[in-house]
Amino acid sequence: MGTPMSAADAPATDAERVATILERLTLEQKTAQIVGFWEKGDGEVVAPLQGEFTRDGGLDDAMRHGLGHLTRVYGTRPVDPVERARWLWQRQRELVATVGIPALVHEECLTGLSAWQAATFPTPLAWGASFHPELVGRMAELIGQSMSALGVHQGLAPVLDVIRDPRWGRVEECISEDPYLIGTIGTAYVRGLQSAGVHATLKHFVGYSASQSGRNFGPVHAGPREIADVLLVPFEMAVRDGGVRSVMHAYTEIDGVPTAADPTYLTHVLRGQWGFDGVVVADYFGVAFLDILHHVAEGLGEAAGLALAAGVDIELPTGDAFLEPLIQAIRDGLVDEALVDRAVTRALLQKAELGLLDATFDEPPTEIELDSPAHRAVAAQLAAESVVLLANDGVLPLLGGSRPAPRRVAVLGPNADQHEAMFGCYSFVNHVLEHHTEVPVGIEVPTVLAALQAELDGVDLVATSGCAIDSDDRSGFADAVAAASAADVAVVVVGDKAGLFGRGTVGEGCDRDDLELPGVQRELVEAVLGTGTPVVLVLLTGRPYAIDWALERCAAVVQAFFPGEEGGPAVAGVLTGRINPSGRLPVSLPRPAGAQPYSYLHPALGGDGDVTNLATAPARPFGFGLSYTTFAYDELVAASAQVPTDGRVRVAVRVTNTGERAGDDVVQLYAHDTVATVTRPVAQLVGFRRVSLAAGESVVVHFDVPTTRVAFSGRDLTRVVEPGELELWVGTCADRAASTSVRLVGPVHAIGDDDRWTSTEVTAS
Amino acid sequence: MGTPMSAADAPATDAERVATILERLTLEQKTAQIVGFWEKGDGEVVAPLQGEFTRDGGLDDAMRHGLGHLTRVYGTRPVDPVERARWLWQRQRELVATVGIPALVHEECLTGLSAWQAATFPTPLAWGASFHPELVGRMAELIGQSMSALGVHQGLAPVLDVIRDPRWGRVEECISEDPYLIGTIGTAYVRGLQSAGVHATLKHFVGYSASQSGRNFGPVHAGPREIADVLLVPFEMAVRDGGVRSVMHAYTEIDGVPTAADPTYLTHVLRGQWGFDGVVVADYFGVAFLDILHHVAEGLGEAAGLALAAGVDIELPTGDAFLEPLIQAIRDGLVDEALVDRAVTRALLQKAELGLLDATFDEPPTEIELDSPAHRAVAAQLAAESVVLLANDGVLPLLGGSRPAPRRVAVLGPNADQHEAMFGCYSFVNHVLEHHTEVPVGIEVPTVLAALQAELDGVDLVATSGCAIDSDDRSGFADAVAAASAADVAVVVVGDKAGLFGRGTVGEGCDRDDLELPGVQRELVEAVLGTGTPVVLVLLTGRPYAIDWALERCAAVVQAFFPGEEGGPAVAGVLTGRINPSGRLPVSLPRPAGAQPYSYLHPALGGDGDVTNLATAPARPFGFGLSYTTFAYDELVAASAQVPTDGRVRVAVRVTNTGERAGDDVVQLYAHDTVATVTRPVAQLVGFRRVSLAAGESVVVHFDVPTTRVAFSGRDLTRVVEPGELELWVGTCADRAASTSVRLVGPVHAIGDDDRWTSTEVTAS
Repeated sequence: MGTPMSAADAPATDAERVATILERLTLEQKTAQIVGFWEKGDGEVVAPLQGEFTRDGGLDDAMRHGLGHLTRVYGTRPVDPVERARWLWQRQRELVATVGIPALVHEECLTGLSAWQAATFPTPLAWGASFHPELVGRMAELIGQSMSALGVHQGLAPVLDVIRDPRWGRVEECISEDPYLIGTIGTAYVRGLQSAGVHATLKHFVGYSASQSGRNFGPVHAGPREIADVLLVPFEMAVRDGGVRSVMHAYTEIDGVPTAADPTYLTHVLRGQWGFDGVVVADYFGVAFLDILHHVAEGLGEAAGLALAAGVDIELPTGDAFLEPLIQAIRDGLVDEALVDRAVTRALLQKAELGLLDATFDEPPTEIELDSPAHRAVAAQLAAESVVLLANDGVLPLLGGSRPAPRRVAVLGPNADQHEAMFGCYSFVNHVLEHHTEVPVGIEVPTVLAALQAELDGVDLVATSGCAIDSDDRSGFADAVAAASAADVAVVVVGDKAGLFGRGTVGEGCDRDDLELPGVQRELVEAVLGTGTPVVLVLLTGRPYAIDWALERCAAVVQAFFPGEEGGPAVAGVLTGRINPSGRLPVSLPRPAGAQPYSYLHPALGGDGDVTNLATAPARPFGFGLSYTTFAYDELVAASAQVPTDGRVRVAVRVTNTGERAGDDVVQLYAHDTVATVTRPVAQLVGFRRVSLAAGESVVVHFDVPTTRVAFSGRDLTRVVEPGELELWVGTCADRAASTSVRLVGPVHAIGDDDRWTSTEVTAS
Repeated sequence: MGTPMSAADAPATDAERVATILERLTLEQKTAQIVGFWEKGDGEVVAPLQGEFTRDGGLDDAMRHGLGHLTRVYGTRPVDPVERARWLWQRQRELVATVGIPALVHEECLTGLSAWQAATFPTPLAWGASFHPELVGRMAELIGQSMSALGVHQGLAPVLDVIRDPRWGRVEECISEDPYLIGTIGTAYVRGLQSAGVHATLKHFVGYSASQSGRNFGPVHAGPREIADVLLVPFEMAVRDGGVRSVMHAYTEIDGVPTAADPTYLTHVLRGQWGFDGVVVADYFGVAFLDILHHVAEGLGEAAGLALAAGVDIELPTGDAFLEPLIQAIRDGLVDEALVDRAVTRALLQKAELGLLDATFDEPPTEIELDSPAHRAVAAQLAAESVVLLANDGVLPLLGGSRPAPRRVAVLGPNADQHEAMFGCYSFVNHVLEHHTEVPVGIEVPTVLAALQAELDGVDLVATSGCAIDSDDRSGFADAVAAASAADVAVVVVGDKAGLFGRGTVGEGCDRDDLELPGVQRELVEAVLGTGTPVVLVLLTGRPYAIDWALERCAAVVQAFFPGEEGGPAVAGVLTGRINPSGRLPVSLPRPAGAQPYSYLHPALGGDGDVTNLATAPARPFGFGLSYTTFAYDELVAASAQVPTDGRVRVAVRVTNTGERAGDDVVQLYAHDTVATVTRPVAQLVGFRRVSLAAGESVVVHFDVPTTRVAFSGRDLTRVVEPGELELWVGTCADRAASTSVRLVGPVHAIGDDDRWTSTEVTAS
């Protein structure tokens, strides 16, 4: 005889299961669920001050009460992935046996899973330069698939900080100075990664990039309107449109309040306004920093309480504050245990969502390909589309262009034959492998020189570096000058070396107070220019540099932003002409460091004018990039001269490839609100589209722009669209190739919390 | 038979008189009362874009309906003051005859009445360097007396902008980077000027100095806490403690809102929180700028309405928006006439307070001495106390020091024999007279060279400039090098020329994107250093420059900040030893421009640390300055180890002149709140005292510091004093000569609107 169905028989919801688990956990077991454990490698330093937090006892000890996160299982040493996966599966089985809950495994993955033998894609500035979010999404999907196969559940990417100052070292982890471009590409990354079942993590929420004078961790001077209208925008897009499952707090303080101790953004904005229901993780050691760097807490227990109250759920990389100090603070009555329960609930819900509460870890993977032909193909396309041609007097392309092919080419400069120059700070090569110099890089990385040798068959290539990236040794200049003198063209490949905490010229903790090329590289270029041989300057950098002098004096200038494992062939392809360059600057090419900070997103009084003697126009504006073909725009046509403030602005433009070879154009649509109740930027990107056109081909690009794209925080900080004139143009932010204007009509449109920062729809026909 | 007393017989209050007047005025007469008229001189440009506002019709036309302000009657041309006063008295009689109300006459007076033949005192940075508010107060009293005698009622000074970036050209109008030093000196200035019956005007309210990258009018990126705790402090002190009668809005925008259109500061803070009941004036053309520069108004009528609603009462220098455009906007129903009535009422109350409603202008002055011996004496003392000795290997003093007196001295550099180099941008000489090159300067101004010639009797002086301030002409280097080679000591006097809108190296609209000495002056100094002759570098500048190289290589470095008409003898006196230097840096001596902005008022993470590769320590810290004698501090003793959060911190230190000659020390007390709910600066000046000590003499300096001096805006932006440890020390901001700490105890002390930013009481015994 059957038992009647009751509520108890219905499958438990995740929330019910988590509530049940929470009830049975001791306080020690609960706090264990909201910390990570970092079994460090061979002593390398990959986070600031990490030496301060050497935790006694190994993983066995850390697992006694269960464990929230396993930190960087694959990422801190060159380990065979399959072997390491076997170890991981074993550890997970032990955890299931101990408390019934496995650990969530997280890794860095900004430009690919940061692990030995894994594909390393172009860096975020290159994504920005590509203006190709769909391609970035495909890259992220491949990254996620690799991670998923290795039992990694969460990736600490993407970085959505809006570039505000090129002096900051972490600019090389950022996508652009434009919030919409960042938000569009960042959302594509999140969707791609999460489509493989791996949770993405938005970094760094919020303000980090706006630090004083571009110094890492420097205080942020910004008001709530700038934060809402500039810095929060890409995060909101990735939360609302991208559905991201995790967010990492920023190390920084804004106007005196460290974000890790501030519920304003981590709770009220993120959860209250945007409806985020995922997990907020700490940046590494960020909870302890409330005590030892920001001095807003007296001891780690108070730091833990502040962070939990603000909305930090998980302490990473390891449990410094959220374990004993927090337990003591709870026992002393200084912290409410309900804050722990809130965080643990979120942590367990994430594990439920990832299927971890039912995982048994029976079968580790026995083979895995982390750098397959599919990876290489996406890496190659993204690299190719990200190279920006900044100047060209006709010397490029070297083959099949307007001039005879050179017979002899000198390939000079410290980055010409350097595979590390393809990668950013958060690649495995530059983040970790520099401590393991005996270990091979793990993936195939053709340098620019090697790629040129492969493409310039029959051309005599003479190579010498001339100098190092960041030294004052000029002893190699003579050889470089001699090589250039004997050549028809000199290709000089200069730039950065990414590294951590002063070990690179760019990267985390590698800030600059000037924007000249590091070391004696400018002198090398000038010495080579002195030979009279045409110079093609190639920059492999992690930030834009002040190179106005080079734009004037070099025959051509090519900018690549750490273009990844296929970056060498991409640069070489642009030089030879195999690839028609189509990257566009995702960040203004700056004036000198003394003119910083600057962004094209400035009100009229942030630009040139009679009120100051100083000019502001950057060396090349946001959106700039040349091609080997030419594009022409017909008139920009608005579907209607009047648009309701809660409507959509529809404009279209015909673009024609008027040159003699196929090429991609990036059609960029900008807007300017001419009069508003607060000052508005003189230019703002509101839509873009990469189009591929054969010689002579035309296409009409239609932009369907929701008025919310030009919304802003009004006087009372509510987001509004105001009536009035809106100028629109295609071109770059600074050059209007074709323009029109529409009038927004009707009442002020106040935008509620449920409205999205909807993306512009762009179609080509 | 007598009539019984009635209310009508009581003398009318000012408010009643003004209400009665307001009733009888037409709208045209009312708007006329809230504008100025500027009868411009010979076409010189002394304000940005003033050419845009050429008003047709002369003064007769402007006076038809009465007139609020007469703008710069003495200040824009070299006119004989007595003759001009006669003209003014006549005009005032005409106004009284027309509408019964004379005009309020205002002038610039930052470093003395900016008029021909008037005394020109040291510039504000020199006041800051003196750390001597009482002396600045005496200077302001003399300035006020001159103005009062000439029928001038309001002076557009002092400038209380807190220096945030040395790149900004108007730094030379500012006192310091420390809000308390500014507030103390600014309050003394206000009291001094107003003691002579002349209303002072605080400039620029608020935020102007924090513009992006130090560019004039650049947008301000700052949150409400920074504004409240840094930028507003000196204004609050001068309003509450100084009783200032007028405030001028800043041109700037903060976080997207132009202050001239924002009631937050001009009304809610100023009147609501601080109880200000004076008049808010516009910065020149600032109302129109809401339309043509900020683009937050469509046309001048809307700009007028925004400014009036925000709390701007008077449009200066002339009526561009507040006349016809405003009248039209009122008639169109776009602006409420009550806003006009509010402004007119305030304007008339100010005139009543100044006695203008009863003035008859019968007797203009027949003689007036604007640069009397009393002026010269104060100018000399203030200049002497403001010269900062930055480095000295023993070469100074030239006479009576540790080395034999030189027989031959080369006096080099473009500012050695330049009287304009004594003055800032807002002096009559540099603000106006540069347009009248045929006119003598009007006052006696000995140059450094002339003063040295007077003091170095019997020493062979050879003088040549070597180069100009701001040119690339090196043709004079050879003569300078030859002169130095033949001398025992080379005094090289370099620095700035103050000017307006690109016509100087510092001053309004003369910003810098580097902080090297202008032009080829560094090269000149280095050429002279190459001779091996000891170099005494003297800087006459309007901003601090990046001169770390000079501090290392020159025998001595002397910094004077445009020291006024007696500046030449003051500098010469320091060089010869007649004056023992006692100035202290009112602003950090900066690192290069690429490291800006920087202020010593930064949280721990704004300083040096492991999280960035960049160092931050300035070349010389705030408060630094050497002497020809030495001072020693005994222990800093706190009266009590525990102090209530609403109490007073009492500390004392004995300072002894341990050298062999008399000298002044500036005893500086700093505090650091070690842990707080928001980040706090690593050092904060909370008290100071200049003491004069004979050789061997001692004095005990007692500081009685109200805890409100270390108050700050808490998480909810209310001002609080929190319990906890407070470190205290004497020395500079960076060097602790003697230190102690106290513990603030008790509950968090919330400070209401009625509490003052009370000054520290300092006594010496």
